[in-house]
Amino acid sequence: GNSVLSAKKSTSLMFGEYKAGLCLQYVSKAVPQTQVDFEYDGPCMKTSVPGPRSQNVGAINFFCNYEESRGNYLVDVDGNRMLDVYTQISSIPIGYNHPALLKLMSNPNNLSTFVNRPALGILPPETFPDTLTDSLLSVAPSGMTRVQTMACGSCSNENAYKAMFIWYKNKERGHNTPSDEDVSTCMVNQAPGCPDLSIMSFMGAFHGRTLGCLATTHSKAIHKLDVPSFDWPIAPFPRLRYPLEQFTRENAQEEARCLEEVEDLIVKWRQKGKPVAGIVIEPIQAEGGDNHASPNFFRSLRNIARKHGCAFHVDEVQTGGGCTGKFWAHEHWGMDDPADIVSFSKKLLTGGYYHKDELQADKAYRIFNTWMGDPSKNLFLSEVLNVIRRESLLEEVARSGRALLNGLYELQAQYPGILSRARGQGTFCAIDVCDDATRTSILLKARNKGILLGGCGERSIRFRPALIFKEYHVHLFLNIFNDILAKHK
Amino acid sequence: GNSVLSAKKSTSLMFGEYKAGLCLQYVSKAVPQTQVDFEYDGPCMKTSVPGPRSQNVGAINFFCNYEESRGNYLVDVDGNRMLDVYTQISSIPIGYNHPALLKLMSNPNNLSTFVNRPALGILPPETFPDTLTDSLLSVAPSGMTRVQTMACGSCSNENAYKAMFIWYKNKERGHNTPSDEDVSTCMVNQAPGCPDLSIMSFMGAFHGRTLGCLATTHSKAIHKLDVPSFDWPIAPFPRLRYPLEQFTRENAQEEARCLEEVEDLIVKWRQKGKPVAGIVIEPIQAEGGDNHASPNFFRSLRNIARKHGCAFHVDEVQTGGGCTGKFWAHEHWGMDDPADIVSFSKKLLTGGYYHKDELQADKAYRIFNTWMGDPSKNLFLSEVLNVIRRESLLEEVARSGRALLNGLYELQAQYPGILSRARGQGTFCAIDVCDDATRTSILLKARNKGILLGGCGERSIRFRPALIFKEYHVHLFLNIFNDILAKHK
Repeated sequence: GNSVLSAKKSTSLMFGEYKAGLCLQYVSKAVPQTQVDFEYDGPCMKTSVPGPRSQNVGAINFFCNYEESRGNYLVDVDGNRMLDVYTQISSIPIGYNHPALLKLMSNPNNLSTFVNRPALGILPPETFPDTLTDSLLSVAPSGMTRVQTMACGSCSNENAYKAMFIWYKNKERGHNTPSDEDVSTCMVNQAPGCPDLSIMSFMGAFHGRTLGCLATTHSKAIHKLDVPSFDWPIAPFPRLRYPLEQFTRENAQEEARCLEEVEDLIVKWRQKGKPVAGIVIEPIQAEGGDNHASPNFFRSLRNIARKHGCAFHVDEVQTGGGCTGKFWAHEHWGMDDPADIVSFSKKLLTGGYYHKDELQADKAYRIFNTWMGDPSKNLFLSEVLNVIRRESLLEEVARSGRALLNGLYELQAQYPGILSRARGQGTFCAIDVCDDATRTSILLKARNKGILLGGCGERSIRFRPALIFKEYHVHLFLNIFNDILAKHK
Repeated sequence: GNSVLSAKKSTSLMFGEYKAGLCLQYVSKAVPQTQVDFEYDGPCMKTSVPGPRSQNVGAINFFCNYEESRGNYLVDVDGNRMLDVYTQISSIPIGYNHPALLKLMSNPNNLSTFVNRPALGILPPETFPDTLTDSLLSVAPSGMTRVQTMACGSCSNENAYKAMFIWYKNKERGHNTPSDEDVSTCMVNQAPGCPDLSIMSFMGAFHGRTLGCLATTHSKAIHKLDVPSFDWPIAPFPRLRYPLEQFTRENAQEEARCLEEVEDLIVKWRQKGKPVAGIVIEPIQAEGGDNHASPNFFRSLRNIARKHGCAFHVDEVQTGGGCTGKFWAHEHWGMDDPADIVSFSKKLLTGGYYHKDELQADKAYRIFNTWMGDPSKNLFLSEVLNVIRRESLLEEVARSGRALLNGLYELQAQYPGILSRARGQGTFCAIDVCDDATRTSILLKARNKGILLGGCGERSIRFRPALIFKEYHVHLFLNIFNDILAKHK
């Protein structure tokens, strides 16, 4: 799998300008000799971050020099070069300025796709069916042969919800023509045309920030405050105790409790006259704190959805695209029929959702907007998928992920007062910090040592590297992180 | 203004292969000698449309060959070349494959912007403030110095609504910290954290199809059927009678009636406990049938919004970008303080909204998502704006628009049994057809003669050419259209 990677440096420890300052209580046992051939050797810090050339307002962390960024390294305007373990909120699949993507841009046959953005739903490019076959359909989840592209994650989920509402109502009216009353009332937002249907979501979930999505998002108050919402049911998501092998029975009970609540809420909302048309869930609650549940939990949930006639929507916007070691996180559940709808965005570069045949809207223009995605993003995606296959990146992710999680286990054993609950799948890992203030302090120190990380939940650090994050980078990270923890007081 | 345009053909009538078949009852009096230098001479039809190589499903009209399309001409997979007066639902600003945009793509300095899409809200490119200054801020509406980019029109409006809700609630709580109850209830979709606020919209409006936007969209049942909605107030939009100069008094009364209803609804919804945080309106209702109102109507509406403490949101997603002869359609109202929020997308190539300082959310991450737009679209927009300025395209639009509207007046005088209510601003024109079946028949005949048009409302044809649609193209269209009408039975 490593054939295209050259061994650029043969030294087993290479931390750029930080090598001298490292405390080596923890030293990785097996630093591989390979790194990514088009990137840098390691972090290189010239100022603290944000540096003097960044002029930050609002949510801005710092300004970037994307021209100079390479592979796993993000360079800022002050020339600081950081190992990026957050990748633009988990949205860069194969690193910065990947040669394969630059090459695609230099092909004159591709220019037209960038310059002429079509109204894809009515006037698609001749090549678009093939582009879909080469890109999204080549990685379609089990049982799904249809895909609808959209411009972003929120639009993907909004339209997936609409597809579930339409499916549910068509089923309810026996696939007959809508009544005149349906048609006239919908124009003024009233039932029966705009029915009181609901989408069930989970506490801690994040599905986007537009008004429909936001009604299913329950991770942070700042996302939701002051925005009108829908009275839709919210089920508890299991709070597993770690290490998992010590709490097998407690965690099984916790999952059973949540599933029972799911069924109770479905019944309760049906009785309230707001039946649940669909259930939406992330395979790992990301923004909400990297909350995991067992394959058995998801299998049972899928069965409950089927039993009650609710569509089952798996939101893979953050988990999809290979970071868990499989292309879709829900493939870890080992089910023949895992979902009715699977939505995606971020690492897939375009938004959209896969769906079963039954979830196809019965008429044209029911799911529609002007752009319906952007074919230039599908072009990039085809090439990203080529790179993933050619370089066996899913296997690489599994390998790097094992090294990362083992390193986190060791660190939490070494610093039990600071770290706990190391968890993950592939490189999609997280660890909890004792409190929010300590987390903030560690994140800032890491950044000033050239490691970019993100937080999630109340006191977790999340790891979201690109798929080209090798064992080499894992150990580079672990050594610097250990240094920070050792000095932390 | 025409200095960069070469007079490619000196013949005054040039209809490609259709010249022979034309009935010349109507012949344009003044066909200019200029056309767009990088495009074709005229339509050229080889098959009926969709032709044998288009495999249509759902809403797809036909498949396109964007590589071969040029300027005002869209080429399909069967080699049919059509004069495009619909431009991908009004979203192509300066025609297909404009040399200025192709040149931008060939500049190696720009590659990184396409290949590395950032999380713009946290890690913007070094150049992004300058890019915004050169692009969106250089055409900011009067009184607005702030802009928020988004990926599409629906996301723009969804986030504009959120900005209005946040502004309204901050005002209501005297800019004090939200209460613990606000914070805890919002997490579970309940008041007071998720308040019962509303957005007022108008019958016939179209503001997008995500759940928040859809609650303010009232143009066609197929957009809304089966999707849950909000109980928000819907005011009547004036139904003007044409020709306007014959119905001055009636139209003034109609507008007064609508404004009275607006005030009644604001009071009524406040009493219902669902106060109106914002009023959203299109300068011309596009999807809803190209419904116009007078500058006086909009001035009065703006005053009503101010009087009742509601934000005033002008949705320029379809009207913005120059097609009305001014960059923003609302500039025709001649007001110092036309709006609190102006949203855009389509011809602007990126979504987003301008807003006043007061509408800036008080905290980071309240208006936020992963991508927050796409800097590569801003790059294209800068170049589009350069072309608009260099070629004085707004003046060209005003000139072409006068020719188009005059031609439509003549045609409706010639065919009063078929056409009525010709109306428009710039090239943003429309005309009504006697019934929907006749409209469909005319649109299909026009397409087979090489003219691409769109419908809107119940029986209108809308004209949405690019900004490079010259008088030459107007007369080319009028002659073919006249031919179709003359043969229509």
